[in-house]
Amino acid sequence: MRMVDLIEKKRDGVELSKEEINFIITGYTDGSIPDYQMSAFAMAVYFKDMTTEERANFTMAMVESGDQIDLSSIEGIKVDKHSTGGVGDTTTLVLAPLVAALGVPVAKMSGRGLGHTGGTIDKLEAVPGFHVEIDNEKFVELVNKNKLAVIGQTGNLTPADKKLYGLRDVTATVSSIPLIASSIMSKKIAAGADAIVLDVKTGEGAFMKELDDAKELAKAMVDIGNSIGRRTMAVISDMSQPLGRAIGNALEVEEAIDTLRGKGPKDLEDLCLALGSHMVVLAKKAETHDEAKQLLKEVMNNGKAIEAFKLFLASQGGDASVVDNPETLPKAKYKIEVPAKVSGTVSKITANDIGTAAMLLGAGRATKESEIDLAVGLMLNKKVGDIVNEGDSLVTIHSNNENVAPIIEMIQACYSISEMATEVPPLIYAEIN
Amino acid sequence: MRMVDLIEKKRDGVELSKEEINFIITGYTDGSIPDYQMSAFAMAVYFKDMTTEERANFTMAMVESGDQIDLSSIEGIKVDKHSTGGVGDTTTLVLAPLVAALGVPVAKMSGRGLGHTGGTIDKLEAVPGFHVEIDNEKFVELVNKNKLAVIGQTGNLTPADKKLYGLRDVTATVSSIPLIASSIMSKKIAAGADAIVLDVKTGEGAFMKELDDAKELAKAMVDIGNSIGRRTMAVISDMSQPLGRAIGNALEVEEAIDTLRGKGPKDLEDLCLALGSHMVVLAKKAETHDEAKQLLKEVMNNGKAIEAFKLFLASQGGDASVVDNPETLPKAKYKIEVPAKVSGTVSKITANDIGTAAMLLGAGRATKESEIDLAVGLMLNKKVGDIVNEGDSLVTIHSNNENVAPIIEMIQACYSISEMATEVPPLIYAEIN
Repeated sequence: MRMVDLIEKKRDGVELSKEEINFIITGYTDGSIPDYQMSAFAMAVYFKDMTTEERANFTMAMVESGDQIDLSSIEGIKVDKHSTGGVGDTTTLVLAPLVAALGVPVAKMSGRGLGHTGGTIDKLEAVPGFHVEIDNEKFVELVNKNKLAVIGQTGNLTPADKKLYGLRDVTATVSSIPLIASSIMSKKIAAGADAIVLDVKTGEGAFMKELDDAKELAKAMVDIGNSIGRRTMAVISDMSQPLGRAIGNALEVEEAIDTLRGKGPKDLEDLCLALGSHMVVLAKKAETHDEAKQLLKEVMNNGKAIEAFKLFLASQGGDASVVDNPETLPKAKYKIEVPAKVSGTVSKITANDIGTAAMLLGAGRATKESEIDLAVGLMLNKKVGDIVNEGDSLVTIHSNNENVAPIIEMIQACYSISEMATEVPPLIYAEIN
Repeated sequence: MRMVDLIEKKRDGVELSKEEINFIITGYTDGSIPDYQMSAFAMAVYFKDMTTEERANFTMAMVESGDQIDLSSIEGIKVDKHSTGGVGDTTTLVLAPLVAALGVPVAKMSGRGLGHTGGTIDKLEAVPGFHVEIDNEKFVELVNKNKLAVIGQTGNLTPADKKLYGLRDVTATVSSIPLIASSIMSKKIAAGADAIVLDVKTGEGAFMKELDDAKELAKAMVDIGNSIGRRTMAVISDMSQPLGRAIGNALEVEEAIDTLRGKGPKDLEDLCLALGSHMVVLAKKAETHDEAKQLLKEVMNNGKAIEAFKLFLASQGGDASVVDNPETLPKAKYKIEVPAKVSGTVSKITANDIGTAAMLLGAGRATKESEIDLAVGLMLNKKVGDIVNEGDSLVTIHSNNENVAPIIEMIQACYSISEMATEVPPLIYAEIN
């Protein structure tokens, strides 16, 4: 078999067999297929796409290119959640204890963040003492006991995907549905999930700006998962403005605590209930999504969700008292309001730029080496559809630096304020099973 | 400027500016743009094509990536000829002295062959003493005096094209009209031609198997040449069977001698008159192609063409007496006939396989390091449309090895002999100005 012939086949729109796809991924991983052939192949895929079978085979070839996490010693159906990424996305912090409280095992492998805000581990480290330095044995033990544990990324997972992802980034082959879908799914599958719930974001603050593209990506991932025996569902949610009100690590922990008590921002709660209901159904803890939502609301209201969060924090060294005393979380020195320059209705909030403003304060990493400041961030006081008067605070900046004039200007520029009433975009556009 | 953005532009079908194309070619030549970006770009070009302006800019950027031959000290309009390659193509050997006899300056840079048969220099070296080891000064002097000289490839011409050609070969991006056209034209322009005549072959023995593809390629090259101020014309000629009768170095020299005397195979003569008339018109030695053809026939008949050939050979150390005594050219030990197995009409001769048979005898190089045997080759006794009886000789093998049974079988398999009359394919399909 020669790579040049397989590139030609794909270029000409011929379907590749499982053996051919394995040859490509194996050769690319071990270096016998050079980057310059792989990038030509990726560009051919960009133009000629892949069939559902090719996508599934490509995904599994990447899964098999490295280590796979074995979660078989954990009882029950392990359901993982993945979000395609957005600004101020606190869903994981809420969802993990929420579904764990219903007995759904959550064995979460998480990473640190790059860009807009921190990753799940960064956020959790805002809780004094919390750490993810536990070994696999302890991890499994905790999940079996508490139904929830978080561990840092371990092992050599999907090396083919890592290599290909870097190559796509510099060869204008990132925005290819089969390549995005197989990349995401390979990581989830290698991490050992039995079932997967996907939160595909759409709108200006998301990778998929257009709803149709988001739907296509969601469908692609659901098809891959289901065709290789991992039940997969997707929710398409709005990222035309940041989700919830908090952006920043400690601020998001506090927002998660509120939400677990049923007192969080409505959009964040609604999305957590939607994603959570899929997880609960996939884990066979409820028959229908409505039943699952009912159960989730119950554990929010009866305190079981927040208890699961406390137990989880304490089991990994964290000071669970922060849950009842959130004022002990890291706090920034200064709270500075961002005033509205005109009166009207908020018609748009540019999520990406809001995220960048939070990053500039120190809430996110500009480069892999950056240190992040867990205390700083933004609290959005006004969201799309809200009426504001000139001088009202749009956003509260939490900063350890008094001089935030450029950040204030940046945030003001993110807000569009209209004289006319504005329709609030729907939170959830579609659910794909 | 970033290469990834330019790949994306091309991927999305946006026209690239001259500056952007220069950035790509300069960066690729100096190594700052890696192969993996260039191959993705080439694949994007494969799918999205290039505009006429992009093609011209791409060609000139490759010309400027290395040395350019300066022929300005040669008087008159220097017209170069290029063939896209075929089997038994003796046209250069005939054309060069033929048009030189009319005062058209032929300053030819030639190479050695790889594959089917030898290159022009290999063929000329069948004349005892002939060599191309002359310096540039002598080269210019000879062209000014005799209107004809041949020199080996010199200088670092179009390094960008050399590098890209190698990359395309292993990334399934060879068969892209804009990339083929710019590759060929960059080499001709760097070699200093004022005007260019192209012989684009079509049919089973050619790179462009389909007439429409050959036309598209010819048009692409003519447009590039004309839009950068080098007058260019193209002839689309048949390569569904080998041209002329001789395949092999000394055999082709003998065939060229016959043709220069107006006694060669009709197809070879006709093609030389067609290509030659374009060269003569471009060199402004005639007004019309008909007039040019008349003039070319005259120098064939009055001996001026053959005299020009003798003068050329002698000026570069060759024994010009071979022209009148071709029996002194290198001769193979054995002449072996290939008999027809059935009676009928020749309906097809697979040119590529005939070429391979000649190469296996030693007439061409299997690898760059192979030594070639100037004496060996094939003489085709039957061509498409000819009637044969069982046992008639289809081909005479000239070999230095008596054991040619596999070659005989190979040649017999190249000939399709039909019970029905066969139409002879036209020699020239189109001329593009």
